[in-house]
Amino acid sequence: MNKVKVNDPYLIFLGSETNPTYAKTGFGIADWQPEKCVGQFHLPGGSVDLGLEELSLEAAAEKGAKTLVVGTATIGGGIPADWITALKHALELGLDIAAGVHTRLADQPELVETAALLGRTLTDVRVPPRDIPVGTGKKRTGKRLLTIGTDCALGKKYTALQLSKELQQASVKATFRATGQTGILIAGEGMPIDAVVADFVSGAAEVLSPDNDPDHWDIIEGQGSLHHPGYAAVSVGLLLGSQPDVFIVCTEAGRTHVAGWPDFPLPSIEDVIERAIAIGSRTNAQIRCIGISANTSKLGEKEARDYLAKLSAEHGLQATDPMRFGMAEITQSIKSL
Amino acid sequence: MNKVKVNDPYLIFLGSETNPTYAKTGFGIADWQPEKCVGQFHLPGGSVDLGLEELSLEAAAEKGAKTLVVGTATIGGGIPADWITALKHALELGLDIAAGVHTRLADQPELVETAALLGRTLTDVRVPPRDIPVGTGKKRTGKRLLTIGTDCALGKKYTALQLSKELQQASVKATFRATGQTGILIAGEGMPIDAVVADFVSGAAEVLSPDNDPDHWDIIEGQGSLHHPGYAAVSVGLLLGSQPDVFIVCTEAGRTHVAGWPDFPLPSIEDVIERAIAIGSRTNAQIRCIGISANTSKLGEKEARDYLAKLSAEHGLQATDPMRFGMAEITQSIKSL
Repeated sequence: MNKVKVNDPYLIFLGSETNPTYAKTGFGIADWQPEKCVGQFHLPGGSVDLGLEELSLEAAAEKGAKTLVVGTATIGGGIPADWITALKHALELGLDIAAGVHTRLADQPELVETAALLGRTLTDVRVPPRDIPVGTGKKRTGKRLLTIGTDCALGKKYTALQLSKELQQASVKATFRATGQTGILIAGEGMPIDAVVADFVSGAAEVLSPDNDPDHWDIIEGQGSLHHPGYAAVSVGLLLGSQPDVFIVCTEAGRTHVAGWPDFPLPSIEDVIERAIAIGSRTNAQIRCIGISANTSKLGEKEARDYLAKLSAEHGLQATDPMRFGMAEITQSIKSL
Repeated sequence: MNKVKVNDPYLIFLGSETNPTYAKTGFGIADWQPEKCVGQFHLPGGSVDLGLEELSLEAAAEKGAKTLVVGTATIGGGIPADWITALKHALELGLDIAAGVHTRLADQPELVETAALLGRTLTDVRVPPRDIPVGTGKKRTGKRLLTIGTDCALGKKYTALQLSKELQQASVKATFRATGQTGILIAGEGMPIDAVVADFVSGAAEVLSPDNDPDHWDIIEGQGSLHHPGYAAVSVGLLLGSQPDVFIVCTEAGRTHVAGWPDFPLPSIEDVIERAIAIGSRTNAQIRCIGISANTSKLGEKEARDYLAKLSAEHGLQATDPMRFGMAEITQSIKSL
């Protein structure tokens, strides 16, 4: 059974982008997997700098790049004409192409034709693989952790990435399991879980974290939130299929309402823990919360430390901002499990 | 925003089927909407009788049939060659075609070509419409009831159909809202909710039951179960998007485990009520359980009455088998709301 897969080394394509905000995917890859990247490539006028070596397409091909990865997005998610010319040239130079933008590579006739002719691969990482099975609910070997949010877009991916990194540094067998487009490009494989047909969401999560060594940890990137008025179905399917042994609740200091749904207050951390255990215990009776990850980027350092200490005391759990203070305590807890 | 739609009057196509089990869709339509059907049509060798007038394709066209509806399924869900010949002839006679079988009409080149040439419509009722929005969670006008199961395939559709019928007979404004292929063909419209991409499930449920008169009831067909290891994502999205005021728990006497998932015990009715209220209160704070619908087909009449009386006493709710004893009490309760 397949996941979405992208071969490295990558050349990160940045178009003619000048605003770093639109190159979040590129920064994500360069920050978390610089060793996967041979360099970055711009079109004329582009100025976003990921800190990678600036390469021509030809130089990237010579350096062994296997895949050109689109690391930026346009307003509206389209693929402009000048991109097509460059992407086609990359195919001609022997590279495959992968992208997570809204418009599909597979809907660009010129790219499809060239790729078919030359035997190259176009990978739309937002498109789920075929033949995803229905979830079985059967217990798998190995251990699993899922990041579960009080909302969308507040650090579930980066919490999972940081924890995977610290576990690996602490000699714990651990694999980051990606469920969204940026995560998939960072990891080189994964499952775009929110694009899967509803009947197969928990099956897709099962495929994502298959049987593994008894002492191996899958650190699974959460999506949406269990209390989200629009996206809870995704989160519930992911939770059931992931059958996590432990989970981390991810939140953001100061966020009071669901982003984009101003009539919906954020659930409390207590509510999230309770709901996650109620639902998750269906496929893993041992499920429990192991810590809180809070995005404190809007607070000063002292405020952030006080906020985390308060969270920790209130919930009797370790609480950290992974990007600011690391995850040493949670890593230690997992190591001792 | 679109639902899947099928125009009546129907001619029900039964192929050369001899086993009524495979013609469940045909029976569903003929039983619940005989007035929508001009008749039934067999291929040579077919013998399943829905109790409708036996018509040739020509006679059906003359009687005003607008859509040939495939009312039977083959093992494996395919569309045999002799079906194609007949379906093509129906298109030529002016009928559209609708089907809910696994193989898509849209994947049959001969039908697609003929339909395009003649301006006819092929409707695969398992295929969701395009442009389904993300769920907003905004409260809509009108009242809503959802049937919620302890498991799949135990009477959620028939409970909703029977209740819609009794409410209409009691002069309550009520509309059956279909979420599965048979329901959609019975109603002539609906949303194949389990085939919708996970991110859009609650949005699809919102489209299915739009704003309505304050005294109008949408009676929404449930899918899956909130405790299902494979399908819970569908059920959660449907619940959030339906924002029901009341729900009916549907179960089956004697079923102890999730059908097809023998390691998973059925949740208790109490658990289902609690979970439905916990999740559903996010989009409708007033949500409550109004009754229990039990499929008692495996019990004798006396046993069934005792079983229902016990359910009713245990849960302090009206309990009935809609197919056996009707839904007078629940209808009365809804009328008084």
